Amino acid sequence: MSEYTKHDTSGNSVGLVEKKFVTLADSPNEIVLDSGTRLGPITLAYETLGQLNSDRSNAILITHALSGDSHMAGYYTQEDSKPGWWEIMIGPGKAIDTDQYFVICSNVLGGCMGSTGPSSINPATGRQFGLDFPLITIGDMVKAQKLLLDHLGINQLLSVIGGSIGGMQVLEWSVRYPEMVASAIPLATTTRHSALAIAFNEIGRQAIMADPNWAGGHYYQGKFPDTGLAVARMVGHVTYLSDEAMRIKFGRRLQNKKDLSFNFDGDFQIESYLRYQGNKFVRRFDANSFLYISKAGDYFDLGSKFGDDSDVLALASATARFLVVSFTSDWLYPTYQSKALVKAMKKNGLDVSFCEIKADCGHDAFLLPNPRLSSLVGKFLERIYRERSGRHAL
Amino acid sequence: MSEYTKHDTSGNSVGLVEKKFVTLADSPNEIVLDSGTRLGPITLAYETLGQLNSDRSNAILITHALSGDSHMAGYYTQEDSKPGWWEIMIGPGKAIDTDQYFVICSNVLGGCMGSTGPSSINPATGRQFGLDFPLITIGDMVKAQKLLLDHLGINQLLSVIGGSIGGMQVLEWSVRYPEMVASAIPLATTTRHSALAIAFNEIGRQAIMADPNWAGGHYYQGKFPDTGLAVARMVGHVTYLSDEAMRIKFGRRLQNKKDLSFNFDGDFQIESYLRYQGNKFVRRFDANSFLYISKAGDYFDLGSKFGDDSDVLALASATARFLVVSFTSDWLYPTYQSKALVKAMKKNGLDVSFCEIKADCGHDAFLLPNPRLSSLVGKFLERIYRERSGRHAL
Repeated sequence: MSEYTKHDTSGNSVGLVEKKFVTLADSPNEIVLDSGTRLGPITLAYETLGQLNSDRSNAILITHALSGDSHMAGYYTQEDSKPGWWEIMIGPGKAIDTDQYFVICSNVLGGCMGSTGPSSINPATGRQFGLDFPLITIGDMVKAQKLLLDHLGINQLLSVIGGSIGGMQVLEWSVRYPEMVASAIPLATTTRHSALAIAFNEIGRQAIMADPNWAGGHYYQGKFPDTGLAVARMVGHVTYLSDEAMRIKFGRRLQNKKDLSFNFDGDFQIESYLRYQGNKFVRRFDANSFLYISKAGDYFDLGSKFGDDSDVLALASATARFLVVSFTSDWLYPTYQSKALVKAMKKNGLDVSFCEIKADCGHDAFLLPNPRLSSLVGKFLERIYRERSGRHAL
Repeated sequence: MSEYTKHDTSGNSVGLVEKKFVTLADSPNEIVLDSGTRLGPITLAYETLGQLNSDRSNAILITHALSGDSHMAGYYTQEDSKPGWWEIMIGPGKAIDTDQYFVICSNVLGGCMGSTGPSSINPATGRQFGLDFPLITIGDMVKAQKLLLDHLGINQLLSVIGGSIGGMQVLEWSVRYPEMVASAIPLATTTRHSALAIAFNEIGRQAIMADPNWAGGHYYQGKFPDTGLAVARMVGHVTYLSDEAMRIKFGRRLQNKKDLSFNFDGDFQIESYLRYQGNKFVRRFDANSFLYISKAGDYFDLGSKFGDDSDVLALASATARFLVVSFTSDWLYPTYQSKALVKAMKKNGLDVSFCEIKADCGHDAFLLPNPRLSSLVGKFLERIYRERSGRHAL
């Protein structure tokens, strides 16, 4: 029995965690990517929380979104002021209960937080890959995660959970390695980007590539394309919010001023907020990784091999139990996309629960404290775990 | 009786038109801007179509949006392949019937198509103003238009018509010079930008100012900030469309390819479209004018002087008859904003007709052929003209 309130988003933290690194390959010394290119061996940075039980049946894989990393919860040091990106959901007594489950999260292939990506050293040149890094897909990210699980000796996942581009990885897992996936929770995601989503990503990429410091992607010895990346992040932030969220959060409120300045300093709080977010992002993220991961999101099309009615055919191989969640004000991955996904699952006779959560904070909702989301995910996991292990989760 | 079908968007063109220029001021040699700064004398570029009648009662002012200009319809030369920006609405037998009305359109103050703006020569330095140009407001644009009408000897407008930022000018006209405005048609507009609209404008401005060629706004002797301006235009284009419009127009269709390229060339048609629009724009538009006009849009707040319930109080001075039009898929200026405007008008007992037109093409709808819009505007103008002149418009 846990001493914490179940699914409490403000509950205890896992405390200190350690980032680990592992070198992986599937053919002798490399992996074959979806594009046909060979890369490797690759490194994945990952973190684990909780304890793997004796029958190895309590492992949960967390997949992160564009700007996330392996640091899902807890702190690296006592001095850290900020915990991992999904602290509200992962920890003792929380929805993804580290008292019960062994939770794994790795930085995606193509990322810049410890896993092999465009800012890694290219063994062929001794310099950073830059744009010589091959294009990677959501499938490639998942393949790399599978190698990590092999390394950890895990051949069964109680669940795969992620939102946005992380949700795409969840869907890819469920059809690429169905025998390994007992349940899957795709949040605020889609089986394929709309033209609108591609458009915003492309604007971000163009902003980066328009920055002269980008230098064709080989900027690591000089100045970084910070201004381009900041604009890309600003675009992203607008798509993560919603009209309603911005009206509530900012409206037309002025920044530290009573009157309009009649200059271009930025009168409105929304302007200051976007500039702040843009500038903060460039201190922690690599511009080329933004290009590669956003492109992987645009390329993702769950059923592209199958033509018409492709999602239904793609999901024919899936066996997982699904919990699909969308958010009312998410206009990047609107509910109608999740509903189409659920329909395709049902056509395959899959066990799927669906919930559209009322939230006015847009696409970002899956990253923000939400009792409904915590409860849904917590109870779903308990049910799956209880059914599979034949014992009570508490 | 016109020989053309009434309100036919594909009807005859006005043919050749001439752009004219006029120097204007209100105090001896300058105008006082809303910011308190003095500027002048100013130049406005303008065009007129049709004939002013003997009692000067048939004048209509057209106000343009961010990237528009005085060239509302017709062609400058026989060789021109493209007519003015509202050719579908303005011409013989069209909704804004040049057989009946004397139609005027000027490039806004702050623009770059012949009117005084940041790319004009600053008399104090002999160089282009750049960022030494004072910030202008929607009110300043309207004040300049009023001086143009004084110059033309027109003290009564049958109507003021415009969409988007042009619609803001329409609203400003109706409260700043109510005695001159018999009717007003604000299309796809708002009394104040939402945080979302400000956010997109700010991203465009940041993209421009992040371009090293921008050089603090003083780029006219060197390279122009084309890459920044192109990104700003790409952002704009996404906001002018809609999720639905993009799905229909582009979906995930690939550009000239059967398979994904696995590089950053731009696989999807939406990517090529945005790049094309961005590159096309920089050939005809000044980056600083983008900064100034978008800022004027963000600053606009019809009732800012009046505090709470400000639109109602602001519109207390209006006497015009209004036709307010919004479009279902416009998410930059959503229908709820037009409905709030109409409510504020009704609270003042104003004569207002409102129509939300079903259109899947987003904010851009007011610029695209739409029989419903043409019919609404055409009939509204006929009614007003008939009532005021005591004779039949046909």
